[in-house]
Amino acid sequence: MKKILGIDPGYGRLGWAVLELRNGKDVLIDAGCFETSAALEHKDRLGLIGKHIEEIFKKHNPDALALEKLFFYSNQKTALAVSEVRGLVTYLAGSRKVHEFTPAQVKQSVCGYGKADKKQVQKMIMLLLGLGKPPKSDDTADAIAVALCGLRII
Amino acid sequence: MKKILGIDPGYGRLGWAVLELRNGKDVLIDAGCFETSAALEHKDRLGLIGKHIEEIFKKHNPDALALEKLFFYSNQKTALAVSEVRGLVTYLAGSRKVHEFTPAQVKQSVCGYGKADKKQVQKMIMLLLGLGKPPKSDDTADAIAVALCGLRII
Repeated sequence: MKKILGIDPGYGRLGWAVLELRNGKDVLIDAGCFETSAALEHKDRLGLIGKHIEEIFKKHNPDALALEKLFFYSNQKTALAVSEVRGLVTYLAGSRKVHEFTPAQVKQSVCGYGKADKKQVQKMIMLLLGLGKPPKSDDTADAIAVALCGLRII
Repeated sequence: MKKILGIDPGYGRLGWAVLELRNGKDVLIDAGCFETSAALEHKDRLGLIGKHIEEIFKKHNPDALALEKLFFYSNQKTALAVSEVRGLVTYLAGSRKVHEFTPAQVKQSVCGYGKADKKQVQKMIMLLLGLGKPPKSDDTADAIAVALCGLRII
């Protein structure tokens, strides 16, 4: 039985999902989207994100972390801020293995096609995990997808 | 009496310096350059950096953190990696105030001139802190300079 935490890192919205491989079947344990207000100080947002991630690690104790990699970005400032979150999350994983995937790798693994759109990813997630309805947000869906991707290799 | 930790963030080399304002005088308490090998896994380097920073916070318990800000960079990959370290260091500062300065702000504060070169910064550091010899590395010097800058405003 393997458990993984998938994270789609972000400052304003961070998607996360805990998945387990149970008797050869992918099972969604828990997932969500953690938001911080842009009205807060940068440092305080990072603090809240860290505390939330620490709680998830404590509650679910996953064997590994699957993290979405920054591959292409048009806004430098955003990219630097997301990297700050990535660094923090990686550190909080402690001795656990950290697997990083680009968005294209995630889509390839989940949909069999690296250029799949959000709708296709959502459909495949629902199919693979037997969900009755789509995840509440795109960030949560992305975290589930990267977790599925990681579950294939741990 | 105010104590500050100055950090020039980096993956391969991270400069750090603890300074104190004692009876109106700047005093260098401790400083160094922490290096991690490029042969290590990315995640393990981040782990070592975090542990080292945690130890410095524990040993010196500074009132605040002064951190060099990324302002201009030519290498995107490096900038993203340095941001990971910045995020981690900011988080480890906990409830302490975090003051961020661009390299130009640091030079302006220490030398009175935003385009001062490394040699000028080194000289001013030696003068202001009454050091008999220059800091061992440029990274350490940069950390001392950003700490001096932070000490002016805490």
